[in-house]
Amino acid sequence: MSLIVQKFGGSSVADAHRIENVAKIVTKFKKKGDDVVVVVSAQGDTTDFLIEKAGEINNNPSKREMDVLLSSGEQISIALLAMAIEKLGFSVISLTGWQAGFRTKTNHTNARIVKIDTTRLKSELDANKIVVVAGFQGVDKLEDITTLGRGGSDTSAVAIAAAMNADLCQIYTDVDGVYTADPNLVENSIKLECISYDEMLELSTLGAQVLHNRSVEMAKRYNVNLEVLSSFEDVPGTKVKERVDMEQLLIRGVTKDDYTARIALLNVPDESGYAYNIFSLMGKHNINVDLIVQSYGCNNRKDISFTVPLDSMDVAVEALKENKDRLKIDDIKVSDSVSKVSIVGAGMQMNPGVAAKFFEALYKANINIHMISTSEIKISVLIDKKDSSLAVKLIHNAFFDY
Amino acid sequence: MSLIVQKFGGSSVADAHRIENVAKIVTKFKKKGDDVVVVVSAQGDTTDFLIEKAGEINNNPSKREMDVLLSSGEQISIALLAMAIEKLGFSVISLTGWQAGFRTKTNHTNARIVKIDTTRLKSELDANKIVVVAGFQGVDKLEDITTLGRGGSDTSAVAIAAAMNADLCQIYTDVDGVYTADPNLVENSIKLECISYDEMLELSTLGAQVLHNRSVEMAKRYNVNLEVLSSFEDVPGTKVKERVDMEQLLIRGVTKDDYTARIALLNVPDESGYAYNIFSLMGKHNINVDLIVQSYGCNNRKDISFTVPLDSMDVAVEALKENKDRLKIDDIKVSDSVSKVSIVGAGMQMNPGVAAKFFEALYKANINIHMISTSEIKISVLIDKKDSSLAVKLIHNAFFDY
Repeated sequence: MSLIVQKFGGSSVADAHRIENVAKIVTKFKKKGDDVVVVVSAQGDTTDFLIEKAGEINNNPSKREMDVLLSSGEQISIALLAMAIEKLGFSVISLTGWQAGFRTKTNHTNARIVKIDTTRLKSELDANKIVVVAGFQGVDKLEDITTLGRGGSDTSAVAIAAAMNADLCQIYTDVDGVYTADPNLVENSIKLECISYDEMLELSTLGAQVLHNRSVEMAKRYNVNLEVLSSFEDVPGTKVKERVDMEQLLIRGVTKDDYTARIALLNVPDESGYAYNIFSLMGKHNINVDLIVQSYGCNNRKDISFTVPLDSMDVAVEALKENKDRLKIDDIKVSDSVSKVSIVGAGMQMNPGVAAKFFEALYKANINIHMISTSEIKISVLIDKKDSSLAVKLIHNAFFDY
Repeated sequence: MSLIVQKFGGSSVADAHRIENVAKIVTKFKKKGDDVVVVVSAQGDTTDFLIEKAGEINNNPSKREMDVLLSSGEQISIALLAMAIEKLGFSVISLTGWQAGFRTKTNHTNARIVKIDTTRLKSELDANKIVVVAGFQGVDKLEDITTLGRGGSDTSAVAIAAAMNADLCQIYTDVDGVYTADPNLVENSIKLECISYDEMLELSTLGAQVLHNRSVEMAKRYNVNLEVLSSFEDVPGTKVKERVDMEQLLIRGVTKDDYTARIALLNVPDESGYAYNIFSLMGKHNINVDLIVQSYGCNNRKDISFTVPLDSMDVAVEALKENKDRLKIDDIKVSDSVSKVSIVGAGMQMNPGVAAKFFEALYKANINIHMISTSEIKISVLIDKKDSSLAVKLIHNAFFDY
């Protein structure tokens, strides 16, 4: 008998038929004798529908009230899924985020989980019930409702798996695993049987939409066995774990992230602590800075450019402009017509041919590279957005078409 | 400075425009210097929409999960109303039932309020905020979500007013007060300036849709000053309070209740305790028995007939059939084509002409009376449903057309 945490996203519970399908998957495991905790997101378009309702009333509502509004979406899902499971004759109970013991920080719409009080979860499992938990939500110390931000339901599932010491955390989604590239973009992309946390983390961070990096980070930290699989097809998915045996493939995947913007500060002072000032300012505004490139200083001046998520661009620029004088910023250049294209793989570091092959593919297609960043297990480049799909295809074929 | 509790029903918050209208009413009182707690129901058709969603999945879901599902409706309303109030520049906070301290019994879909822990409500009012509370909902001792059943939001509002010792509890609705008869049915019906709790209670119980009897009972018990008024028109409503000065009108109103069924048990034993057995059986099934008529015993046999709410009819009949032998029931006759028509007024008792006038109106129209029941302040008759609208008009005109 194992304890399995299963997470189903919004598209997996989009309508009555799909909810019944989820109920079948869940009860299949229960029938085998496993204890099951199921984490669900809001139904397909509920969140958009609620955001639209809010927009009709106030185009700048407080984040606290947005959390109250949006968290109703998962509350609807858990009740409906519990009803579908009841119908199959199983004992089941739904729990909202606060009922399931999710305690978070107060930063609304993007709250961090502080802890999970598992008392209720445990007692319901002890009573032999399937437990259906609302993902994406919790309460802060005032008992105000919070939401966890993007990828929140994945994070909820992994957090429960960690807190309950579950044997497996399955993330059901609309693709049947992790591929070497987006199958919609690259026809001959290959499904990975397994992948390490670090590789998955790079893939997630770099734009693969399968898993959110917060959930992978947490899985790595608490050593939670993850599996990414399809809620529509009964086929094996991709396992994510600490160590993956060396395989033939050097490269785990090629990704692109069109959701990025470049900010360049030209001709700034070449002083110690300057970069610190810039990036602590970004941190204060909760902006995740990604690629950073600094020019070699010359005449006590240098250029700094970096990328930020597209939806942080305006906030970043405004913050920089407000601090223009203090930070001695002369000229800010911004571009949102860029994409980040990356390859990820633990084998890369030991094989110098990888970088060469990567750049060769771009060179052959005459694709200009604006920025480059590398780590032990990835290479990322910033290129024009218009070239990004082609670049992914060419790079994938360079590595996998053998 | 007063503390005012205001309640707005589903039709008052049905869309963005109406929510903005509610925000204007609420802030008008806040601007005058009052402390305001606002209780709202789910938006117009949300509850029906959610019930339909549940029905697509399970036509007999557990009541616990129905409560989880339906309570999301008010959560949406409170967030949207708070956003509308924010937009008008006022400090505001929304609270769900559990956040507002509503503790209830466990009987899902029809829970009774045990107490309100007002700590949070008080601290938010002390912080000079308008507090928007989700009506209709609470949590039981396990922290499971419960709903209060029909008229639940009215009850929530009155309960807060009682617990907080509010100066006034305003129930905003789509009519502008309590009328002597349904204005849709009787053109020349008259709006009452005020009415006593007992009279209001009879009117509510007898089918006037303005206020639910649970909320009036609670208002009477805790001596909460009520006012029923329109959320669409800025005109004085009807005040409901302990004592109403003697006025010209003997009769407060004429009502009909089409939502009733008659059950007749024929030829049952004329034994002591027999009625007790029947009605304790009904009580065990949570069925509210209303009019009761027992025939004069003869040859140790008698007939008992009584009315129950229409939606309890099937449960009542089934319970009686299951206990047929024990209760020596020979023959059960059931009719759902009946209506209860009533007049209510504290002055009635001292004026024997009232009953005569009432029966005369029915007699003149040749309307047959199946059952009669009277109290100090009301006369009710059960007649054929097809005659009920005509009966209300004729009775109203007999008393008010002078």
